[in-house]
Amino acid sequence: MTIISLLTDFGLKDGNVGVMKGVIWGICPQAQIADLSHTIRPQNVPEAALILFRSAFYFPDDTVHMTGVDPGVGTARRPIAAQIGPQRFVCPDNGLLTRVLERAGQEGWPVEIVHLDKPQYWLKEVSHVFHGRDIFAPSAAHLARGVPLRDLGTPIQDAVKLALPKPQRTENGWRGEVIHVDHFGNVASNIRMEHLGSELGHKERIVVRVGGVEIRGLVNTFGERPEGELIALMGSTGNLIVSLVNGSAAARLNAKIGDLFEIILP
Amino acid sequence: MTIISLLTDFGLKDGNVGVMKGVIWGICPQAQIADLSHTIRPQNVPEAALILFRSAFYFPDDTVHMTGVDPGVGTARRPIAAQIGPQRFVCPDNGLLTRVLERAGQEGWPVEIVHLDKPQYWLKEVSHVFHGRDIFAPSAAHLARGVPLRDLGTPIQDAVKLALPKPQRTENGWRGEVIHVDHFGNVASNIRMEHLGSELGHKERIVVRVGGVEIRGLVNTFGERPEGELIALMGSTGNLIVSLVNGSAAARLNAKIGDLFEIILP
Amino acid sequence: MTIISLLTDFGLKDGNVGVMKGVIWGICPQAQIADLSHTIRPQNVPEAALILFRSAFYFPDDTVHMTGVDPGVGTARRPIAAQIGPQRFVCPDNGLLTRVLERAGQEGWPVEIVHLDKPQYWLKEVSHVFHGRDIFAPSAAHLARGVPLRDLGTPIQDAVKLALPKPQRTENGWRGEVIHVDHFGNVASNIRMEHLGSELGHKERIVVRVGGVEIRGLVNTFGERPEGELIALMGSTGNLIVSLVNGSAAARLNAKIGDLFEIILP
Repeated sequence: MTIISLLTDFGLKDGNVGVMKGVIWGICPQAQIADLSHTIRPQNVPEAALILFRSAFYFPDDTVHMTGVDPGVGTARRPIAAQIGPQRFVCPDNGLLTRVLERAGQEGWPVEIVHLDKPQYWLKEVSHVFHGRDIFAPSAAHLARGVPLRDLGTPIQDAVKLALPKPQRTENGWRGEVIHVDHFGNVASNIRMEHLGSELGHKERIVVRVGGVEIRGLVNTFGERPEGELIALMGSTGNLIVSLVNGSAAARLNAKIGDLFEIILP
Repeated sequence: MTIISLLTDFGLKDGNVGVMKGVIWGICPQAQIADLSHTIRPQNVPEAALILFRSAFYFPDDTVHMTGVDPGVGTARRPIAAQIGPQRFVCPDNGLLTRVLERAGQEGWPVEIVHLDKPQYWLKEVSHVFHGRDIFAPSAAHLARGVPLRDLGTPIQDAVKLALPKPQRTENGWRGEVIHVDHFGNVASNIRMEHLGSELGHKERIVVRVGGVEIRGLVNTFGERPEGELIALMGSTGNLIVSLVNGSAAARLNAKIGDLFEIILP
Repeated sequence: MTIISLLTDFGLKDGNVGVMKGVIWGICPQAQIADLSHTIRPQNVPEAALILFRSAFYFPDDTVHMTGVDPGVGTARRPIAAQIGPQRFVCPDNGLLTRVLERAGQEGWPVEIVHLDKPQYWLKEVSHVFHGRDIFAPSAAHLARGVPLRDLGTPIQDAVKLALPKPQRTENGWRGEVIHVDHFGNVASNIRMEHLGSELGHKERIVVRVGGVEIRGLVNTFGERPEGELIALMGSTGNLIVSLVNGSAAARLNAKIGDLFEIILP
């Protein structure tokens, strides 16, 4: 089993994602390739880091996750590859692995990162502007077909990390922020199940404040409330979210990344 | 050959479709996976039922079609799996199989449906809000790798069916309605080839009325008429459609699902 | 290794791309299938011809590239298949191969094109409006599984070619035009690396004019200049492009296909 996932901001209209698959199959014909997303907002490294983190660990061990969100393409920023716990990664060194590395710390997983500095594993001609095609896809394919990580580059210890916003304890709860708005308009915060702890046993008494509204009590799922009602609940990745039943909470609340998202515990 | 198709309203930006592929390959590494659509309008079960029906029977026998359009996720609605004629299906029990079951009735195909009630075939942790990942994808993967349908759940006879609008005979034709508007803006009705019967031999004399316009005569294809002309013709799935040559009939007519669509026979 | 790529204007919402994959796997179960793009603007043959040209040669030899952008579907226009250098193609005969054939001429590659006129290699029922499903996908699958090109149809020498705009030499440079605007809003011209020749050694002295602005000097990549600055550079396929650092040059310049794009050489 040889799986590669692709995550980029390339969009779907120009053929660039297909080109990377062509390059990969030229090197690793047996690769099965899954698209994670190609509509990350252009150059938005934090968004890609979140999607990568939420997705990678649902894949079989040793999947190679290639991420091409790369505002620094062609500059001195390093291309890197990594083994982080059970999963492998290939991407520019711009913070994309921040959340994955955070989890590795929590889980006590081994981490090995190399600077991809062996051009023999890249396409022969490397453009200044499309390293997804010329460096990352070929490197991912070589890794997937069995080339050891250490052969692809030189070990490094100083991969770039993003400064992620952390929820702050308040007198009677937590002050977090909106970190994602999904396709349905669900508004996700950085307040997680673990922040609630034993209070999760009193869900009906937790209060959520976001976008100028206050929602009293968490529910388990959408269908518990009538269409058009704002609800707060645990999202599928363990983050506290606000949703509008059969509608878009983001549109209703005019919510966006970075907005204040608070909870008051009983 | 082990094929799984995926049909959801999850959109393409958040990684959720990729996550389901990761889950599937963890259980059934040899699965070949095709996306049918992930841009069903949110929670729109009738639209998904139509796309599923139009698509499923073009796949090789024993393909497993997984559909995740699920406004009732996490509530008492049942997850189900089915063998319907040559194809297999995994989805919530909310009417998604209506059109497929209708065809089974017409064709005299055997139908077997089970309530997916064996958690050993799901992910270990099941969220309240993402059964596509936690129940449907793993169930589809187990089915694809050879687990018999009956092992996945308990047989049921009362799967939910949608009440679909049927064309009504009028004095001189049929009164139907718009049931789909496609990417090109073609406006499809529920009036089908079989409603026209022998009148198809007099295509030039059939009159179509929709969106306040009247189109006289059916053509075979777009290129028979000049750019910008409204035409009526048989669509690729046997439904009568109205198109604008090299343009969007839906935009021209301001047509939408449920609009009246009538024909007058010679 | 059996690879098929798909390029269409079908969009992603209606299931039509998935249906073609089902048809392909019914004929060639081992095919690995990559999507190049399905959001070519409706009926836009020149755009599809460009994406096909930019993408095809990054795939392993003998990949079959199926293109379904087909304003003449169901009319007398011919379905064709071709071996052009190392790659294979299946599409309507409407100019889609123009750029690929141009490259074959430059490279001295052998070219063989057949009119697909053997219905035994198509689906049994052929609609007037969806030859992607009924003719092109099955033909591509048969080609991929090893049926010789000559068995699929009758050789032709007169494939349709588009009249593509060529850059014109001016007194002190080249007058070209905008031929593509990508997902990021990069504005690509038909002026290519080979038009600059030895002047590429004096990149800082080349001047680009497009959309009423003048950009002095080419850079290598985006990160060399501050966010929000317009830059000119070589794109990843060897065409001269204008970009806005971390933004959309097309939006800034209100640029569109066919706009004048000039360079002045030192």
